[in-house]
Amino acid sequence: MAELTVDQLVDGVRAGKRRPIARAISLVENGDPKGYELLKILYPETGEAYAVGLTGSPGVGKSTLASALVAHTRALDMQIGVISVDPSSPFTQGALLGDRIRLADHFLDEGVFIRSMGARGHLGGLAQATLEAALLLDAAGKDVVFIETVGTGQSEVEVRRVADTVVLVLMPGSGDAVQALKAGIMEIPNVIAINKRNHPQAKTMLTEVRQMLALGEIERMPTIVLTEALEGHGIDELWAAVEDHREWLGAERLAERRKARMAAEVFAIASERAKEHLERQVADDLELQRLLGEVQDRKLDPLSAVRAIVERVFNIRTNGADRVG
Amino acid sequence: MAELTVDQLVDGVRAGKRRPIARAISLVENGDPKGYELLKILYPETGEAYAVGLTGSPGVGKSTLASALVAHTRALDMQIGVISVDPSSPFTQGALLGDRIRLADHFLDEGVFIRSMGARGHLGGLAQATLEAALLLDAAGKDVVFIETVGTGQSEVEVRRVADTVVLVLMPGSGDAVQALKAGIMEIPNVIAINKRNHPQAKTMLTEVRQMLALGEIERMPTIVLTEALEGHGIDELWAAVEDHREWLGAERLAERRKARMAAEVFAIASERAKEHLERQVADDLELQRLLGEVQDRKLDPLSAVRAIVERVFNIRTNGADRVG
Repeated sequence: MAELTVDQLVDGVRAGKRRPIARAISLVENGDPKGYELLKILYPETGEAYAVGLTGSPGVGKSTLASALVAHTRALDMQIGVISVDPSSPFTQGALLGDRIRLADHFLDEGVFIRSMGARGHLGGLAQATLEAALLLDAAGKDVVFIETVGTGQSEVEVRRVADTVVLVLMPGSGDAVQALKAGIMEIPNVIAINKRNHPQAKTMLTEVRQMLALGEIERMPTIVLTEALEGHGIDELWAAVEDHREWLGAERLAERRKARMAAEVFAIASERAKEHLERQVADDLELQRLLGEVQDRKLDPLSAVRAIVERVFNIRTNGADRVG
Repeated sequence: MAELTVDQLVDGVRAGKRRPIARAISLVENGDPKGYELLKILYPETGEAYAVGLTGSPGVGKSTLASALVAHTRALDMQIGVISVDPSSPFTQGALLGDRIRLADHFLDEGVFIRSMGARGHLGGLAQATLEAALLLDAAGKDVVFIETVGTGQSEVEVRRVADTVVLVLMPGSGDAVQALKAGIMEIPNVIAINKRNHPQAKTMLTEVRQMLALGEIERMPTIVLTEALEGHGIDELWAAVEDHREWLGAERLAERRKARMAAEVFAIASERAKEHLERQVADDLELQRLLGEVQDRKLDPLSAVRAIVERVFNIRTNGADRVG
């Protein structure tokens, strides 16, 4: 296949065609100038797709649940995108990861685009690549984009950064996620799916989660749904819970939250750029390396070194203490 | 109590006295210029304490284990520091957090200094405050500093950033941490303590962990120890496992790793400063706010905005694509 021009790619993405979408995502993943041009042209056309995050510990059945949700929403005649993020995987660019193979059920359906993303080979990081892929799927006319990723503690890709509704998937008999919620390490999701509802401890977990939620002050109590993804049980309730949250948000609140998220994203990417710049400067600058060496030899304290480095690299002046002046 | 001068604080910390240490940690936590002076003076005297990280999901018994390890090492006549980090807690500055109350057993022992740190009120972030507190305890003549924190996935405070030996605490019947290790989301620790060894599933977990470790290529296989922290069982084996790892490291490798960690720390703090500077600049600069608004209104794509922002704030030029040129 001859290399597509930017115009051809833009047309192909707009038409929701599989190959141009795949190519476009690869280009943004690789930090190719063409990918940058694509996003520039297509970004004003985004904002239509609804982003649903599926998060949870490894092994709880997120992919199976995602696959069932795809089948459900396709039956409602929606155009669907799926981004399956696995920070532990070295594979990237469309490679199908581990148990995500279930998603392969939908590979022949033109109304579904599925993309797996691993940890390596993303200029700008996995979080940025995920955001950009979601924007491209949005521009491609997808009604819903599912973003599936691990989410115990602070995952590299915080699904909250891109999702309008966050679904936390729990598995009975495995209490670490509940503990993390209880301890406030994990933020309260919008919907909770207790998957493998036939498990003997499913009811116990339901009670435990309810008690935990009753303790905190929550803007909106998450809906809890019992599912059995493999057999497709509870999927309609799960989708209804997502729709309920979407309705609760309403157009205005949704727009506000998206604006806040987008600003946070710009800050995050800009900070990442600043950090990369810093690392390159230190690698190239003998004076900065000398400072670092003095810290390593315990001759110069780290904060004095930081002060000198940020002053030299960014022209930022700090006062005597920690504060940037 | 009259406010101590920097000289008095330095003398007090050097003498290992409780109140000056506590005051010094508070000063660095608050980003007080005096704290900065203290670190500047005391940093060259650090590097003697051995830092042991205790990490694991909430509820596995890290604090009880830390308390038992304190008793054990005190019996060996060591001077001990404990930093108990809880990113979910709003308390800070010496407040005793939740189940960390067990550590109170040692409050009357002058040879032990215990500090709890919550999430709020740290200028520069919890990770930096933890590092600085550890340095002060090091300067105070502590032989061992235990740093206890949650560690499922990527915790805000990665204990690996400050610890020479990392002990992961697991609890039988709770498999999320093992899954996280298996999935490569959590890095392999140096020592694994399976706590609550009387639990019916303790042996199953031991087998599971061994199988998991056998799969990967690991520089040094972690020692696995079965403990029962509440009754003090297995604590001597656990401490022996820490000492084994220390011996395996040897002076040279330990020095190399500490140097690498310290450089990473300087980068992390400098990046944080750059980020804070960025946020302040955007808050003060109408042109930058306009750019952000255009992104939020989907008129300007995020990467173009990032390019303009980093150029304006940091004077960093980027090329057409993602790369900082």
